[in-house]
Amino acid sequence: MIELRPVLFINGILLSILATAMMIPAVVDAAIGHPDWLVFAAAAAVTLFVGVSVMLTTRSPLGHFSLRQAFLMTNLAWLVIATFGALPFHFSELELSFVDSFFESMSGVTTTGSTIIVGLDHAPPGILLWRAILQWLGGIGIIVMAVAVLPILQVGGMQMFRVEAFDTDKVLPRAAQIAGGITIVYACLTILAAIVLWSLGMTGFEAIAHAMTSVATGGFSTSDASIGHFNSAGIDYAMSVIMILGSLPFVLYLRLLRGSLSPLWRDSQVRLLIAILATAIALTTYWVWRNEMMSLSDALRYSTFNVISVMTGSGFSTTDYGRWGGFAMALLFILMFIGGCAGSTTCGIKIFRLQVLYASAKAQIRRLVQPHGVFFAYYNRKPIPESVSTSVMSFFFLFTAFVALLAIALGFTGLDFITALSGAATAIANVGPGLGDTIGPAGNFASLPDSAKLLLCAGMLLGRLELFTVLVLLTPGFWRG
Amino acid sequence: MIELRPVLFINGILLSILATAMMIPAVVDAAIGHPDWLVFAAAAAVTLFVGVSVMLTTRSPLGHFSLRQAFLMTNLAWLVIATFGALPFHFSELELSFVDSFFESMSGVTTTGSTIIVGLDHAPPGILLWRAILQWLGGIGIIVMAVAVLPILQVGGMQMFRVEAFDTDKVLPRAAQIAGGITIVYACLTILAAIVLWSLGMTGFEAIAHAMTSVATGGFSTSDASIGHFNSAGIDYAMSVIMILGSLPFVLYLRLLRGSLSPLWRDSQVRLLIAILATAIALTTYWVWRNEMMSLSDALRYSTFNVISVMTGSGFSTTDYGRWGGFAMALLFILMFIGGCAGSTTCGIKIFRLQVLYASAKAQIRRLVQPHGVFFAYYNRKPIPESVSTSVMSFFFLFTAFVALLAIALGFTGLDFITALSGAATAIANVGPGLGDTIGPAGNFASLPDSAKLLLCAGMLLGRLELFTVLVLLTPGFWRG
Repeated sequence: MIELRPVLFINGILLSILATAMMIPAVVDAAIGHPDWLVFAAAAAVTLFVGVSVMLTTRSPLGHFSLRQAFLMTNLAWLVIATFGALPFHFSELELSFVDSFFESMSGVTTTGSTIIVGLDHAPPGILLWRAILQWLGGIGIIVMAVAVLPILQVGGMQMFRVEAFDTDKVLPRAAQIAGGITIVYACLTILAAIVLWSLGMTGFEAIAHAMTSVATGGFSTSDASIGHFNSAGIDYAMSVIMILGSLPFVLYLRLLRGSLSPLWRDSQVRLLIAILATAIALTTYWVWRNEMMSLSDALRYSTFNVISVMTGSGFSTTDYGRWGGFAMALLFILMFIGGCAGSTTCGIKIFRLQVLYASAKAQIRRLVQPHGVFFAYYNRKPIPESVSTSVMSFFFLFTAFVALLAIALGFTGLDFITALSGAATAIANVGPGLGDTIGPAGNFASLPDSAKLLLCAGMLLGRLELFTVLVLLTPGFWRG
Repeated sequence: MIELRPVLFINGILLSILATAMMIPAVVDAAIGHPDWLVFAAAAAVTLFVGVSVMLTTRSPLGHFSLRQAFLMTNLAWLVIATFGALPFHFSELELSFVDSFFESMSGVTTTGSTIIVGLDHAPPGILLWRAILQWLGGIGIIVMAVAVLPILQVGGMQMFRVEAFDTDKVLPRAAQIAGGITIVYACLTILAAIVLWSLGMTGFEAIAHAMTSVATGGFSTSDASIGHFNSAGIDYAMSVIMILGSLPFVLYLRLLRGSLSPLWRDSQVRLLIAILATAIALTTYWVWRNEMMSLSDALRYSTFNVISVMTGSGFSTTDYGRWGGFAMALLFILMFIGGCAGSTTCGIKIFRLQVLYASAKAQIRRLVQPHGVFFAYYNRKPIPESVSTSVMSFFFLFTAFVALLAIALGFTGLDFITALSGAATAIANVGPGLGDTIGPAGNFASLPDSAKLLLCAGMLLGRLELFTVLVLLTPGFWRG
């Protein structure tokens, strides 16, 4: 049997943090006299009560977590937070069904950004703020998880990103220091982003909400038209930069603070991310411009924003790129899968995995002609251990297989082909909008059947926890101990 | 430098065989007095002249082929045969452009089955026969290649299917015996199929043509409406069985001849193939019937035929399954990628690779919870060597990556999203029709721009030669020697 007390204890702490965060929209709604303040206050009270009760009943010395406990804790944390995070949606004046509320909350904490709320422009500010807070918390949660938990769990090649501080037996002191450092960087980036967006013409509220959801590469907006609502080139480009900042490895920001730019610029992940984005933007700009849909400067502006938004898995939009034709749709569909760097707020396959896959395939091909030659696959100028490349390749297979299975299952709930296929991709890669008229950038997830929404929730969780973390729970060996 | 003479010599032999095959439609057209007989006779003469000239000038003792020579020979053989096979299309009364002729010929020899000819029902018999012959030759070519060449080249995990006879230094005698045995089985299956189809109501000509293209899981038909033209449940089910027979490992048929059914039935590839087909047919039948598109017996009949046709990469159709809604389209789209067994006429990822990928992922997941445990991945009750699983995983990555890149490139030629995406999949998996109104089961490839047709030709060749065989030529090490 797995000793559950430390697992529950950590979840109690997280629920208490969530409850504290719920007080913020409560205060905002109360300040402007919106009756929803009561909903947030009540939800906060319930969440806090549950959190503290769990903490008190499961209090135990926090020693070393076993692997099983760490896996269980991670799964439970995301599920529990999504569930309690849904309370305000359900009881607010929006009167969302519980499935809808859970969908919105799961889409928030996983930083996916798919929404079922229609009429954001007139939604109560508390709700808009709560959506932003969920994504912001989800964003920092995933970075800390990617730095502190996944490398030790050896999930999908993440063992390459072990930070030594987390390896020693005295985990807590230095680990807490690094996690703290990253949280401060994350918060500072958000504040900076808010100031920039505000200076470019957003209201203070809009600037804060969008800063939180763009640093988190989340994609929730305060308008149904997303960033298209502001119709400002300045805001478009500023948001583009912020989304890229959210897609870089946050550990490198810490090193950056200690000195030069070089660790960030010399990182091969970062270089490839920029190279793919630049190529995709150039091609899309040319395509949109050549087909005379817009002027060259507009083509550049809209291509830059939407390509970055899709590939980083943010999911904001400034126009309905579904009308850009087959090339743009095919390109954006593929970019959905890619994502950003390891240890960022992005999801998807991630740049480093593509590098490992490419390097392994190259070594493989060379070996065919010279079966007795020795060919290593390299990552960041170091040979890739066999265990890492196998792990990455299995991740890639599972990622693709689950997108395929989810697409088939979504089709079975009655969705059309493009909605089912892009819906599966957008959920597992945590992007936000899909393609097609229903869930595309100009659409909304509200009209989907409940079964499809729940399937998408499962997809978002699977993707966010890098598949392995969830699938481990399904092996019989996990529970037998 | 690579010694080219033996490479060219083998290609000379293959061209001479092709020239001989061209005489068959020449004779048929001459017998019914169709003027195209001259085209076939002339094309045969040219092909024979080139083939024999090459043989005479490059004649050399056939010793042991080096790996480089084997790779080069395989690539060259498929390219040269597709090129010369295109001659009759170009010069016949159909007056196809050279790109169209090359597309039709490449689609034939790779057993893809995509066609650019509109009006098959009134096409000259010589042309219809030539299309069937190309697929039939491509089918046996690929089986022999999969049994004799690819395992030695260690392409994409095919080393698991080494037949010892091909491993010794005295390759030729036993290898020729096995290749001969397989060819006889292949021919007998074709004759049997023709008799069955003829007894079910096809004309003799139709029966022969469809027997050749269904054993080859090719998909060329003598009617624009494909097998839907015959509107016969008997023919539908018979063709379904023939396509499955073409998807099984032909080496096992040889063992079958020596004794019991057990080697075929105990092969895990065969079992999984049947299991996937049965599940997909059951789901599709239920879906089509529940949505009241047809009666239960019709639903079973149309689902059985089209699911088998798509998954085995045959590409015949009996109805426009593009109208079956999102679920059927998503399912059929995914099935396209799967294909049949190793050493059959099918293309795609293939069943054994899915088994290796699944087994590796499972071992991987178990290892996460018990990092010190020893978990092997098994195939057919034997542990999978590390080199095989790495090779298979790289194959899967390359397969997916090339479908993605081809889809983007096809989008750039102006195709819509569904056409570009399904076109890329159907080409690399050698299926035949894609999805959507343009290239779907009710459509045709004729209207695509030449650039798209050439891209699809490249995709068909890449897929047919299991990617690695082509990609090896692109490494600088290959040519430096």
